[in-house]
Amino acid sequence: MRRALVVSALLSVLGASPVLAVEGMWQPAQLAELSATLKAKGFQLDPASLGDLDSYPMGAVVSLGGCSASFVSPKGLIVTNHHCAYGALQYNSTAEDNLIVDGFLAKSLAEELPGSPGMRVYVTEQITDVTDKVNAGIKPWMTGGERYDAIERAEKSLVAGCETEGYRCSVRTFYGGISYQLIKQMEIQDVRLVYAPPESIGKFGGDVDNWMWPRHTGDFSFLRAYVAPNGHSAPYSKDNVPYQPDQVLKVNPEGLEAGDFVMVVGYPGYTNRYSLAMQVENAVSWRYPKSIQRREDMIAIIDAAAAKDPAAGVAYASTKASLNNYLKNFRGQMEGINRSNTIAAKKALEAELAAWLKEQGGAENLALLADIDKLRDLTAEGMEHRQRDFALGLVGNTDVLSSAVELVHMAKARAKPDAERDPWYQERNWSRHKAGLERMQRRFVPAVDQQFLVYALERYVKLPESERLSSLDNWLDGAASHEELVERVAELFAETKLTQTEDRLHWFASDLAAIQASDDSMLQLALALQPQLQALDDQEEARYGEWSKLKPRQMQAMIAWKASRGQPVYPDANGTLRVTFGTVQGYSPADAVWYEPFTTARGVVEKHTGQVPFNVPEAELEAIKAGDFDGYASEKIGGLPVDFLADLDITGGNSGSPAMDAKGRLVGLAFDGNWESISGSWLFNPKLNRSIQVDVRYMLWVMHHLDHADNLIREMGLEVPSSESSDSD
Amino acid sequence: MRRALVVSALLSVLGASPVLAVEGMWQPAQLAELSATLKAKGFQLDPASLGDLDSYPMGAVVSLGGCSASFVSPKGLIVTNHHCAYGALQYNSTAEDNLIVDGFLAKSLAEELPGSPGMRVYVTEQITDVTDKVNAGIKPWMTGGERYDAIERAEKSLVAGCETEGYRCSVRTFYGGISYQLIKQMEIQDVRLVYAPPESIGKFGGDVDNWMWPRHTGDFSFLRAYVAPNGHSAPYSKDNVPYQPDQVLKVNPEGLEAGDFVMVVGYPGYTNRYSLAMQVENAVSWRYPKSIQRREDMIAIIDAAAAKDPAAGVAYASTKASLNNYLKNFRGQMEGINRSNTIAAKKALEAELAAWLKEQGGAENLALLADIDKLRDLTAEGMEHRQRDFALGLVGNTDVLSSAVELVHMAKARAKPDAERDPWYQERNWSRHKAGLERMQRRFVPAVDQQFLVYALERYVKLPESERLSSLDNWLDGAASHEELVERVAELFAETKLTQTEDRLHWFASDLAAIQASDDSMLQLALALQPQLQALDDQEEARYGEWSKLKPRQMQAMIAWKASRGQPVYPDANGTLRVTFGTVQGYSPADAVWYEPFTTARGVVEKHTGQVPFNVPEAELEAIKAGDFDGYASEKIGGLPVDFLADLDITGGNSGSPAMDAKGRLVGLAFDGNWESISGSWLFNPKLNRSIQVDVRYMLWVMHHLDHADNLIREMGLEVPSSESSDSD
Repeated sequence: MRRALVVSALLSVLGASPVLAVEGMWQPAQLAELSATLKAKGFQLDPASLGDLDSYPMGAVVSLGGCSASFVSPKGLIVTNHHCAYGALQYNSTAEDNLIVDGFLAKSLAEELPGSPGMRVYVTEQITDVTDKVNAGIKPWMTGGERYDAIERAEKSLVAGCETEGYRCSVRTFYGGISYQLIKQMEIQDVRLVYAPPESIGKFGGDVDNWMWPRHTGDFSFLRAYVAPNGHSAPYSKDNVPYQPDQVLKVNPEGLEAGDFVMVVGYPGYTNRYSLAMQVENAVSWRYPKSIQRREDMIAIIDAAAAKDPAAGVAYASTKASLNNYLKNFRGQMEGINRSNTIAAKKALEAELAAWLKEQGGAENLALLADIDKLRDLTAEGMEHRQRDFALGLVGNTDVLSSAVELVHMAKARAKPDAERDPWYQERNWSRHKAGLERMQRRFVPAVDQQFLVYALERYVKLPESERLSSLDNWLDGAASHEELVERVAELFAETKLTQTEDRLHWFASDLAAIQASDDSMLQLALALQPQLQALDDQEEARYGEWSKLKPRQMQAMIAWKASRGQPVYPDANGTLRVTFGTVQGYSPADAVWYEPFTTARGVVEKHTGQVPFNVPEAELEAIKAGDFDGYASEKIGGLPVDFLADLDITGGNSGSPAMDAKGRLVGLAFDGNWESISGSWLFNPKLNRSIQVDVRYMLWVMHHLDHADNLIREMGLEVPSSESSDSD
Repeated sequence: MRRALVVSALLSVLGASPVLAVEGMWQPAQLAELSATLKAKGFQLDPASLGDLDSYPMGAVVSLGGCSASFVSPKGLIVTNHHCAYGALQYNSTAEDNLIVDGFLAKSLAEELPGSPGMRVYVTEQITDVTDKVNAGIKPWMTGGERYDAIERAEKSLVAGCETEGYRCSVRTFYGGISYQLIKQMEIQDVRLVYAPPESIGKFGGDVDNWMWPRHTGDFSFLRAYVAPNGHSAPYSKDNVPYQPDQVLKVNPEGLEAGDFVMVVGYPGYTNRYSLAMQVENAVSWRYPKSIQRREDMIAIIDAAAAKDPAAGVAYASTKASLNNYLKNFRGQMEGINRSNTIAAKKALEAELAAWLKEQGGAENLALLADIDKLRDLTAEGMEHRQRDFALGLVGNTDVLSSAVELVHMAKARAKPDAERDPWYQERNWSRHKAGLERMQRRFVPAVDQQFLVYALERYVKLPESERLSSLDNWLDGAASHEELVERVAELFAETKLTQTEDRLHWFASDLAAIQASDDSMLQLALALQPQLQALDDQEEARYGEWSKLKPRQMQAMIAWKASRGQPVYPDANGTLRVTFGTVQGYSPADAVWYEPFTTARGVVEKHTGQVPFNVPEAELEAIKAGDFDGYASEKIGGLPVDFLADLDITGGNSGSPAMDAKGRLVGLAFDGNWESISGSWLFNPKLNRSIQVDVRYMLWVMHHLDHADNLIREMGLEVPSSESSDSD
């Protein structure tokens, strides 16, 4: 594998000893190839069976679109992270009945609550290699833009041929385009909230502990998938019935110990393990610092607004949580990249690969070398307008204006036959657009959105002439100072009704002429801006077309090089189903410090201050102090395990993924990585990168002892602890 | 021992398992009694020999007055902490030649620099029990004040009978007054600066890492004791010669490993292990919060002044360091007391002792019980005027006014025969007064001192009428607002010359009439204040007299109780020579975290940022990265050891104490306690309290590899590593 080499280069930089790790976000079909390693690590099922998406345990793992999850009962019960159900908790909460604070338990199916709009469960049913079909439309003489269009055309056609009622298909790119796979997923639209512990457990430690170890977060919750009585996917309806999954994860209530085999299956979203050193440099020296500043400023705007208007605080709670999460993430990226000498390691790797290609010689190898250089040039070109792209990104990130631009884009797309539309504006995505336009209402406040737009424009007006958009300049009409921009934006918001859901939905159903005829100021601005924004998108797409020629060449060189050493290469994460396996183990974050792989309930008491985010319920404190663990405590671990570490290779999107033991039984849920793993998106450091899982024993104990969710424990086919301890609180 | 019991009470509160520790700041004479334990721990010398102050190794350990140290060569070479030599470095530094920043090495005796004024080495030569002599002057009918005077009289007389030219004697109280010991120390007045690494090593981590583990501070330096050619103590003179100590510590360059026996000998200053629960409560709820606020405010004043005037920053550098040190200390005290449930543990102990006394019965035991109750009442009484005492303490802590009060006090004392003076004003201490009056000049700035006085008066004017001093009120003349106080203090400073050394020294030599006749505003204020301050002192002394009756009763009960279990009791630290022994070991500061007992040079590189206080020299970074450790690295520890932990019982005053191996050879220097040990002054927690030592291997490596102090390595009788590594940088 590539990273084994990266790591050895890295370790020689650090002067440390090598560690045996099995890093990799493997495609299910690759695991047969890794059979020997899986068995050596302790895996007890047939490795080849992991390639079969219908069989146990793969068939039980699902995507929530951004999170992962798994079926744990034949009646469609799903377990995932607390933070993956946060939107549903928020959607069902009121000031009087705050499910986020109090938690929620449905004691029967009838008590289950609807998920938030757009909440989905995706069950992957088929993965088909479609590389030949995509490549068939690509001709060597094509420009970047043409190439992009050809790929998009092929993908749209493949998706159209695949999708049927209740199913979503997508074409995913692997190794930058060496292969394309058509993925068919059943889309369950009726997802209900079943159980979540109070936030004081489910989000214990909050932003303070986010990305941190030792961790004591009970980050789990339960949902249920519902379908029409005929078993087909259907929108929410009282008549719907629980979905019956083909596979259901068994739960191992005994959990794991240090040194045990552990495997996580889920849908990691994005990594850039094969990016160039220059991209890491750009991130550390420019992108992260700018993004950090922007997020700090946005949080300051939200906090100031929330201080005056508590409703604004509620509306932006999840935006702020996300801003904070990225803020900490970017800081961690910068720290991790410096600490792991990622730039040096990538440079060394690029030099090694180049040296190998030269050593091999031959026209093809030298052509690969030349293409890697072209990839470098193309990457540099993409960074040329980063100031402009950043400022326009800020403008585009405001809620009302971006919805207006989207409505214009939609109306233009609507005029075309569906097959010719941009994929995101194809009919299959319309319900998502609508859900987004609806969801927006609970998550924004016009006064705050105005401030965000002013903030964005203040950055925009500082751009040099050559980097500006005439359409936006025309609208600005010379406004440049803070006061002028405030006034301009206030006028804009005074003359729009897009701040209201019904208006947004109305225009979503309209054609371009109607929008052009409207006197809505926001729509008029969007109409003016959209063509220039579209032109920038087209440039970006053309660059992607070029990239899709060159990136596979780099990967091809990499794969050949690794193959010469007998090492398989896994593709970057791309939101498709992956498997990572390894060992429960701690690590040393600093000289003279060792982090144990398990935290225990003792640490909950140590951290508890009574103030958010360190405020577990009094009943939990008392039970821990009394040692009332209902048999879930582990003598070897020295208490009730709460969270645990493993050297697994996960990333965003893996949240909620089941952690499984050697027999594929559920023993926890992945919910975070440690601080040192944040920069793992660029480079995996086996000595320092750890995934964090909530332990099944803590989940069961909280369910039984504190929240009395015995109905769910039974539904998962487990024994409920004898009653006296449940009576004790 | 008492603390074994406290600990068992504590552990039952925490629900943790007991740990075998040998906590205790033992008097040398007690160690024979602990012979079996010492041997079981691995001590290889004769435990009884530790009771002989003339023999090895005790004869090599000296006091610096506030720090500890030891002789490491027959030519009077002394090793102690970097922070214990800080004053000497500061004294010898100029803006051009900053020894603090650059470090200092004398390559020959001729290059050695004079220590700071008042710098002393005290060699304890004799300890005599004088309990009978002190008690002979005490009569049962005496009031508290009379009792205080009787004790003071006896002590003065014993000291007068003991001191000869070049010697200092003192009477120290043990167990609150159960025993008194007369301690005779040779006072070496010519102490010179020999070697200190740069501050970037000697104070690496600075205030950030202070009290923290993992630690990477090279907190060591070398001094030399000089005496007159006839061997007698003498002030600095070019003709002086190196002192020849009777005992010299051998150095073990191999150092220790985890689990090894280790012993620290030194002069711990103060503990309150036998204080009452109510005293801990007072500290946590009142004293520490007030002291924290005061120190934060003083630092803010210093920082603001330093921002305008760098010279003020230099003058207050050591004051600020001390303020920060205490600030962190008090915060740690509060945290530690809460964490270790110290109040609950002390209450439990008091209840257990009372129960035991009742169970034993008999008039004497019941009388002891009644006396402990009286001790509680007396303690409560001492807290009644805490607001006033705090405010007057602030006033008294300003430099110029306090020197004026001291001059008045001195002049009054001067009129009496020496034997009748307050001990601090006896002739034997005059040179210290003068040194203090001189030293002050480098450490204060009038403008800042004025602000401190204003700050103090702002607190004073808020006291209720009954708590105020008429003399101070008269001077204030109604000034109460900030502006009024600023003006009043400015007037005071405009009319005084006590801001100048020569004036202070002039008045130090004057009689009261001369001071009364002066028109110096500060002296006039001091003349007005002094009688009322004296009256408050007298009240305090009377209370001490009462306390000296009751405290020994509490200790007597404690000792009897422990004796009934075969457990010896050590007295609270009181600045006398003590021995603590135990084991090199790490600890768990939090759930899932383990701190290893050794840090290594790797951690220096990890922490290095290039910015103070994490800025080791480039040569050190390079050497560590290259692994150039000259044979001082330990394979078992996994690198070059820097600092190490042990479960030793030390406190302030122990700084610079030699850490010795089982054969009494130097293996490091104690320089700090961990964060969790800060509250150890009230209660020792064997699971969490750790002393921090700089490792002899790091000392030798820094000396040889970075600072080329091979002359000192040779002087200590050690081999210098072969030359190639020394040539490498």
